[in-house]
Amino acid sequence: MIKVGIVGATGYAGAELVRLLTSHPQAEISAISSVSFQGQKLSEVYPAYLGINDMECETQEDVVEKSDVIFAALPHGLSQELAEKCISAGKAFIDLGADFRLESEDEYTEWYGGTFFDKNLHEQSVYGLPEFFRDNINGKKLIANPGCYTTCSPLAIAPAVKLGLVELKGIICDCKSGVTGAGRKPNQGSHFPELNEGFHAYKVASHRHTPEIEQTLSKLSGEKVTITFVPHLLPVNRGILATVYADIKQGVTFEEIRKAYEEFYKDEYFVRLLPNGMNADIHNVKYSNFCDISLHHDSRANKLIACAAIDNMVKGAAGQAIQNMNIIFGLDEKTGLEIMPPAF
Amino acid sequence: MIKVGIVGATGYAGAELVRLLTSHPQAEISAISSVSFQGQKLSEVYPAYLGINDMECETQEDVVEKSDVIFAALPHGLSQELAEKCISAGKAFIDLGADFRLESEDEYTEWYGGTFFDKNLHEQSVYGLPEFFRDNINGKKLIANPGCYTTCSPLAIAPAVKLGLVELKGIICDCKSGVTGAGRKPNQGSHFPELNEGFHAYKVASHRHTPEIEQTLSKLSGEKVTITFVPHLLPVNRGILATVYADIKQGVTFEEIRKAYEEFYKDEYFVRLLPNGMNADIHNVKYSNFCDISLHHDSRANKLIACAAIDNMVKGAAGQAIQNMNIIFGLDEKTGLEIMPPAF
Amino acid sequence: MIKVGIVGATGYAGAELVRLLTSHPQAEISAISSVSFQGQKLSEVYPAYLGINDMECETQEDVVEKSDVIFAALPHGLSQELAEKCISAGKAFIDLGADFRLESEDEYTEWYGGTFFDKNLHEQSVYGLPEFFRDNINGKKLIANPGCYTTCSPLAIAPAVKLGLVELKGIICDCKSGVTGAGRKPNQGSHFPELNEGFHAYKVASHRHTPEIEQTLSKLSGEKVTITFVPHLLPVNRGILATVYADIKQGVTFEEIRKAYEEFYKDEYFVRLLPNGMNADIHNVKYSNFCDISLHHDSRANKLIACAAIDNMVKGAAGQAIQNMNIIFGLDEKTGLEIMPPAF
Amino acid sequence: MIKVGIVGATGYAGAELVRLLTSHPQAEISAISSVSFQGQKLSEVYPAYLGINDMECETQEDVVEKSDVIFAALPHGLSQELAEKCISAGKAFIDLGADFRLESEDEYTEWYGGTFFDKNLHEQSVYGLPEFFRDNINGKKLIANPGCYTTCSPLAIAPAVKLGLVELKGIICDCKSGVTGAGRKPNQGSHFPELNEGFHAYKVASHRHTPEIEQTLSKLSGEKVTITFVPHLLPVNRGILATVYADIKQGVTFEEIRKAYEEFYKDEYFVRLLPNGMNADIHNVKYSNFCDISLHHDSRANKLIACAAIDNMVKGAAGQAIQNMNIIFGLDEKTGLEIMPPAF
Repeated sequence: MIKVGIVGATGYAGAELVRLLTSHPQAEISAISSVSFQGQKLSEVYPAYLGINDMECETQEDVVEKSDVIFAALPHGLSQELAEKCISAGKAFIDLGADFRLESEDEYTEWYGGTFFDKNLHEQSVYGLPEFFRDNINGKKLIANPGCYTTCSPLAIAPAVKLGLVELKGIICDCKSGVTGAGRKPNQGSHFPELNEGFHAYKVASHRHTPEIEQTLSKLSGEKVTITFVPHLLPVNRGILATVYADIKQGVTFEEIRKAYEEFYKDEYFVRLLPNGMNADIHNVKYSNFCDISLHHDSRANKLIACAAIDNMVKGAAGQAIQNMNIIFGLDEKTGLEIMPPAF
Repeated sequence: MIKVGIVGATGYAGAELVRLLTSHPQAEISAISSVSFQGQKLSEVYPAYLGINDMECETQEDVVEKSDVIFAALPHGLSQELAEKCISAGKAFIDLGADFRLESEDEYTEWYGGTFFDKNLHEQSVYGLPEFFRDNINGKKLIANPGCYTTCSPLAIAPAVKLGLVELKGIICDCKSGVTGAGRKPNQGSHFPELNEGFHAYKVASHRHTPEIEQTLSKLSGEKVTITFVPHLLPVNRGILATVYADIKQGVTFEEIRKAYEEFYKDEYFVRLLPNGMNADIHNVKYSNFCDISLHHDSRANKLIACAAIDNMVKGAAGQAIQNMNIIFGLDEKTGLEIMPPAF
Repeated sequence: MIKVGIVGATGYAGAELVRLLTSHPQAEISAISSVSFQGQKLSEVYPAYLGINDMECETQEDVVEKSDVIFAALPHGLSQELAEKCISAGKAFIDLGADFRLESEDEYTEWYGGTFFDKNLHEQSVYGLPEFFRDNINGKKLIANPGCYTTCSPLAIAPAVKLGLVELKGIICDCKSGVTGAGRKPNQGSHFPELNEGFHAYKVASHRHTPEIEQTLSKLSGEKVTITFVPHLLPVNRGILATVYADIKQGVTFEEIRKAYEEFYKDEYFVRLLPNGMNADIHNVKYSNFCDISLHHDSRANKLIACAAIDNMVKGAAGQAIQNMNIIFGLDEKTGLEIMPPAF
Repeated sequence: MIKVGIVGATGYAGAELVRLLTSHPQAEISAISSVSFQGQKLSEVYPAYLGINDMECETQEDVVEKSDVIFAALPHGLSQELAEKCISAGKAFIDLGADFRLESEDEYTEWYGGTFFDKNLHEQSVYGLPEFFRDNINGKKLIANPGCYTTCSPLAIAPAVKLGLVELKGIICDCKSGVTGAGRKPNQGSHFPELNEGFHAYKVASHRHTPEIEQTLSKLSGEKVTITFVPHLLPVNRGILATVYADIKQGVTFEEIRKAYEEFYKDEYFVRLLPNGMNADIHNVKYSNFCDISLHHDSRANKLIACAAIDNMVKGAAGQAIQNMNIIFGLDEKTGLEIMPPAF
């Protein structure tokens, strides 16, 4: 059994890690920590877990000591030092925060502020989006787990970008996210009466996930890609739908694109390429690690429109982190993640 | 592996059976049927299941033939004949409908219309609320699986009723249910714009679950109990909260009642008696087979107020049906049902 | 034009006062105040009001000086001193808080803590539930505007209580409220992901509205009434449904009760007694000052079950406050309040 | 008083017309009709209206006879014949359906099927989007009231298109609508449990509102415009948000665009151009005739991103229809429509 520690267990991503790991057949939670709730039981914070996980929140040090792999679900800027401790102690470290996601320190400084604490550490890290970078992840100990938008958007458009079927210029990611993506801390914007029955864009063309999506698409295409990214807030708990627009290259048919997607994703258990005529819906991936993709053709404007739906807390956070753990520990990638999304 | 067949698989209870049985370690779904969708795949009806369960809907006959146990999720009146076929063929039969729930044919006729198709069959059946009637269920082949309100309300008040701590006269069950309880068929009342942001009672003091709750409480107390039952419709997908009111008998203290509940439910995995100060919430049992109970004392009017929360589709339908299957097949009752409710 | 000032205009009740007064034909908002947002425009707090009400939040003193009548929507304990200033200055004062609602200082101390600042002031005040106490309100200058639960619950049961058709002992008010009743300040319980798809009781048999409901029912019946009151939190923005249970007195028929209600409410514009067979629904009173009441008979237990639905922010707060203003200024009670609830 | 008749009064648009006209100071509802509910009261269909509008549904003929202006809220294809009757009888006719919206019969045939019943009639009709075509509407008797998406999307981008500040090629309208847009008739997609907590695109690049948006943008720009239009379904009752993307022309600055919008909309009461930094939100326009617009600049890709929010049933249907009525009857355009959107 892999001994798993969770730092930041009382945030939403941490709590979701606990839920998923509880039914993982080859991992056991060895310790959890929380700055805000140290000394309290997780089930006091989340009564849903009562009797199933009544572990007490310990310190980060306890977690590191008791675990083979540490998942960190922390605000950005707080993971780098912890990562160094874990790696030095020979542990694996999977960061659900943003500290190791961007390879360029300049971009990190531009979008997040701050600098790289230890450049060497950053060179050891790998970006953990298995469907694209599985081979690099294998054998690593320091994983930068992607964000939610940055998982969903590239999955929607990757085959077309990688295979040169669409123009790289002018790609638009119009994304809509459930509110758990904004975290557990109450604020005016997520106060029930003000979010309920509402809908709006936010951080238009200025969200921090922009350079991360571009980094992935640039790697896949081999060229520097600039995108337009607009997130919106949905009055639902879970789920992201990315509607991605790209101009189809002259001479390429929609049928060729469809075929390319089928080939690209044919061995990917977690990607469900929907039959033509269906629409990806966040309703159908809730609580699971699936990414549903539907492809559409605007034949009048000759655009590819690809919709991808994930559960932002699973494939967009905790589930993907466990998928990465499975890879680096040599397990079947699906272990503990073959979860059937409920029908309603 | 137990071979399980599901008749009425495309309704909500049927679809939930499929979800839960898919991860059951000692059962496999052998066949499913649906009158409305015969010949179609379940995943065409519920795209959430795509790639996980793409079974085709066959006929009832196919299901009976291929299965050791048949779950029937049918409108009332349609199970009796099917039950006879199954029992004759030596199969187990678990009815999620109402046909075998009431022991009195007169009551059945009064509340549902129609008569008992085969009295002998009814005598072989047992009412499957394991927390109360486990010993009777063991060894049976024909199970009347309780309804949702009729699971939640008795669980809330049973210890007090059974042990004579409250007056049997004047018990009120004020219940609130999510809308999946009304089934998959669209109608005006469950049309999104008319239910959303709404709340109302329905079938006030005239709902068919009334005699079933009374039958259970009468069995537990040994006296004929008449209750007041008022259901309400919540604008949420899943969950029932029962708020049950009873007059505390003179000389009995709230602390004695609390202790009695603790003793009564101390070995019940699926019942979580919450610490004083907490309130049972449907949020905390979603997608799981748990029943959360909180006890409250109105010391001014000397009433016991017991709140019980379940997921109406799990402990209130499909989960409890599987719990019954586990019992009659000699498995640990929890098999396949140790599901952690998500924190959000 | 009546010059109206609002103290605490940026809370939900204050904001609703602004909305309703904006279309009041004989009142104009002279000034608004807010401790948290002083110097800011109301439309910065509520962008829905942009261009319609861009008034700046001033001080309490400004409000008092510029107004004929002051509405105070303040946390309890903060109104008494302000009331005294207003009354001394010859202004009318309508308190949407709890400071003047209870006539008994002992009860106030027991349920709220603190004491009556000025007993004389309390004697000048009147409890503003017009359907019952209209004659007392007329001519007064200091109005204690009822709370939301304390409007809805008595309206449901008043005729039966006043006319002695039900037992006064054992009345139960099982109430369900939308979340705006908890105010504008974000907290964990009203954080969208934790309230959405949830439902639970709170402050069971210990909510501060209990003595206020009892005071009203005691006045109506002429006897001291003790009730059981259990509030629940609905995942909707607006609305309260009160389901009230009472034992019908021997010899009284349900038809007599129905007739009594019809007679009692026949001239009340804001009370809509629904035809038999309909269920009061919060959906149908949203944004309006109506109270819909449906009557039901549990003939098996011989109980009256009365459901009443209001918009907690209108008839349960701001609308009723304006209704009171209309009375004390000699206007038609309906002025500015003939709002058609939207169909969806 | 203008005598107003409503054909199709029991659909959502019809019911919203009733709500808005009830408080219109210079109009009175003379008659209503409904094929499905003929002979029944409107308040039986919508109990929210009980006591306020208990009119009985009559025949179309009755409506035409009793009215100066007829609003028709009918499925497409059913308005043309009725329009002819009304116009022949000297009545004004405002069609909330699609029959008169497209000027090109070929486009009508392509997107809707069927042909123009009477070409002459079509030539008398005018497209009623007052902010753009007010001068044409004045004096007309036959108004094609725009659809919801087709109001919101052009309002978002019109100034930039009309003044040549953005490229006409490649405009994308990514729209999200509340579910009332799909009408009152229950179906699987709007069944509460399947829509709630879900989100998906539909009719991607194939929705019938596409040519209507293009027609408006072509008129404004003087060139044939082709757009990409993708609608999505939001789990809320009311509201549309259009997120519109366009490439800024070389040499044009975002500040110039901002100024152009300010100038373009400076006299438009119903358009609220939000200050920079704010995001248009459907929450803030609910139940009102406002269109909130926020402008954003993607400086990295040099795109204009304009968000526009309306209430799909008011500015997107019934409210705009009344705005058109006001124009053709020579009233102030705002009459009866100065509705403050509620803060929550």
